[in-house]
Amino acid sequence: MRAVYFDGAGARMRDDYPDPGADRNAGGGGESTVSVTLAGICGTDLEILDGYMSYRGVPGHEFVGVVEESGGRGATLVGKRVAGEINVGCGRCGRCQGGMERHCPARTVLGIQGRDGAFAERLSLPARNLHPIPDSVSDEQAVFIEPLAAAFEISEQVQAAAGSRAAVVGDGRLAQLICQVLKMSHGDVTCFGRHAEKLKMLERFGISTRLGAEPGEESKVHGNGDTQSFDIVVDASGSVSGFADAMSLTKPRGTLVLKSTTASGSGADLTPAVVHEVTLVGSRCGVFGPAIEALATGTVQVDHMADSTFPLEGFGAAVGRSREGDALKVMLRP
Amino acid sequence: MRAVYFDGAGARMRDDYPDPGADRNAGGGGESTVSVTLAGICGTDLEILDGYMSYRGVPGHEFVGVVEESGGRGATLVGKRVAGEINVGCGRCGRCQGGMERHCPARTVLGIQGRDGAFAERLSLPARNLHPIPDSVSDEQAVFIEPLAAAFEISEQVQAAAGSRAAVVGDGRLAQLICQVLKMSHGDVTCFGRHAEKLKMLERFGISTRLGAEPGEESKVHGNGDTQSFDIVVDASGSVSGFADAMSLTKPRGTLVLKSTTASGSGADLTPAVVHEVTLVGSRCGVFGPAIEALATGTVQVDHMADSTFPLEGFGAAVGRSREGDALKVMLRP
Repeated sequence: MRAVYFDGAGARMRDDYPDPGADRNAGGGGESTVSVTLAGICGTDLEILDGYMSYRGVPGHEFVGVVEESGGRGATLVGKRVAGEINVGCGRCGRCQGGMERHCPARTVLGIQGRDGAFAERLSLPARNLHPIPDSVSDEQAVFIEPLAAAFEISEQVQAAAGSRAAVVGDGRLAQLICQVLKMSHGDVTCFGRHAEKLKMLERFGISTRLGAEPGEESKVHGNGDTQSFDIVVDASGSVSGFADAMSLTKPRGTLVLKSTTASGSGADLTPAVVHEVTLVGSRCGVFGPAIEALATGTVQVDHMADSTFPLEGFGAAVGRSREGDALKVMLRP
Repeated sequence: MRAVYFDGAGARMRDDYPDPGADRNAGGGGESTVSVTLAGICGTDLEILDGYMSYRGVPGHEFVGVVEESGGRGATLVGKRVAGEINVGCGRCGRCQGGMERHCPARTVLGIQGRDGAFAERLSLPARNLHPIPDSVSDEQAVFIEPLAAAFEISEQVQAAAGSRAAVVGDGRLAQLICQVLKMSHGDVTCFGRHAEKLKMLERFGISTRLGAEPGEESKVHGNGDTQSFDIVVDASGSVSGFADAMSLTKPRGTLVLKSTTASGSGADLTPAVVHEVTLVGSRCGVFGPAIEALATGTVQVDHMADSTFPLEGFGAAVGRSREGDALKVMLRP
């Protein structure tokens, strides 16, 4: 089949990539083969192309597709339009048995760890990972289910108190979704970003915005009265300075949600967390139910976040576009 | 009066230091003058001598003393033996009014920030900060009230679930107290340290121990079956490698309590916190009530942790001793 393959140095289009259905004995092994209709490029994909997770294989983990083949309990899924949860646990260890399959030590993760992903004609996932999508959700909207579920994970982890103020640092694709999700539980949400156009998109949802520095410049979020004034702050900036900004915005004994991996990777200063007794909450993937529901009912809106769509052959150009400062969700149509 | 004064470069003994009673109008200003009987040297004092907080003045914040003079509501304290909470808020801001005086942005902190400390004949604190000490608590024990309160702060912040396993990284003065406090709420407590003698002291309390690497060597806590096996881990190591060890010991979705400032200061990697959805809880000072109670009833034992006692004139030697790997609580008797 046609697929984008990343060998650790570069990604290239291949016409002869092994079909997951043939290789993985999908159906027999309890896995389903999905024909990918549309896939989204996410910040994590860009990190993977830069070496994150030392991944080798087909990248891509945000997708919508149609089930081609499925055995056992998944048989009723054949022909259905689905999105898929990306973590696949062993199913036997204590964590899998305890409902923490996403934290199974032997897990594979679609397009991220030990499992070929969505930038291909077909992919394979266990039937239990697949969620049928209501007709009211378009393919373009369905591509946002996976990142939107990651945004909803914050609501699972952190309870909003009455009158509490929330802030999001970053105005990128994930940050935009997080702002909308936080607005569902917090009356007062402020987004600190570096792109005027992206911040403007949030105003329609009643989200306050602050325009900070351009990338590479010193942050300007300090000293404008926002310092230590938010009960919950989400760092979705993808930068070390964004983490420091988020810390400076958090009230003493407040909560800072860590939503990006690179942001934190290189040299975070945790001293303010001790002095101000801040709680930091690491947050990764979420469950799909609330995300599908929010898109189906229009509670969360994503249409304005679609950027451009490329064929698999245009992967290089799609990545280039996705790395641009004003880019929103770039998609691939296999 | 006689006092140890730190000018930012070095600490020296002075015989002519201004008396806090005269300078601060104690009594009239609602403050009490305390004649210091005994003071303890803490890791934070050593950090201050290395430049932490850019502090200038008399260091020292762990003490027991006798109230000499006190006005207003503090009048009943005169002649009483007391320990003192070290944070002094402005009393007027929202945080002070909301019971968060320890996080007042204009606060002073005894011997740490804007307020002369306990390595002197006398110190001054508001009467509301002072706690009379029961006769059953000796002076030597009373010096441990402040760090023990900091250990109890963890119990205030983190609830123990039935059957949960706790670990402490570090075997120093604060870590020893934290181990005993955690043992009150957790059946299973393991201490990871680098000093065999210090770890041995914990065994009498039913605390499991693991001897890791010597300072400067690569940690050895990994790979011995303890990885990701604790529900709550406290980093009281005072080192960056200790923080990484603590993270590696924490279960996915577990809690890591940050109890030392330097540990975190220089380059913490937060990526594992995101991937494993770990919650990090910054933890600083605590209230004195539970600490005094635990010492009075013998629930927490500290007699074996007294090291040596020096006069103020021996401050240099006392600090030298306190920095040694096998040192426990070194005290100064003004």
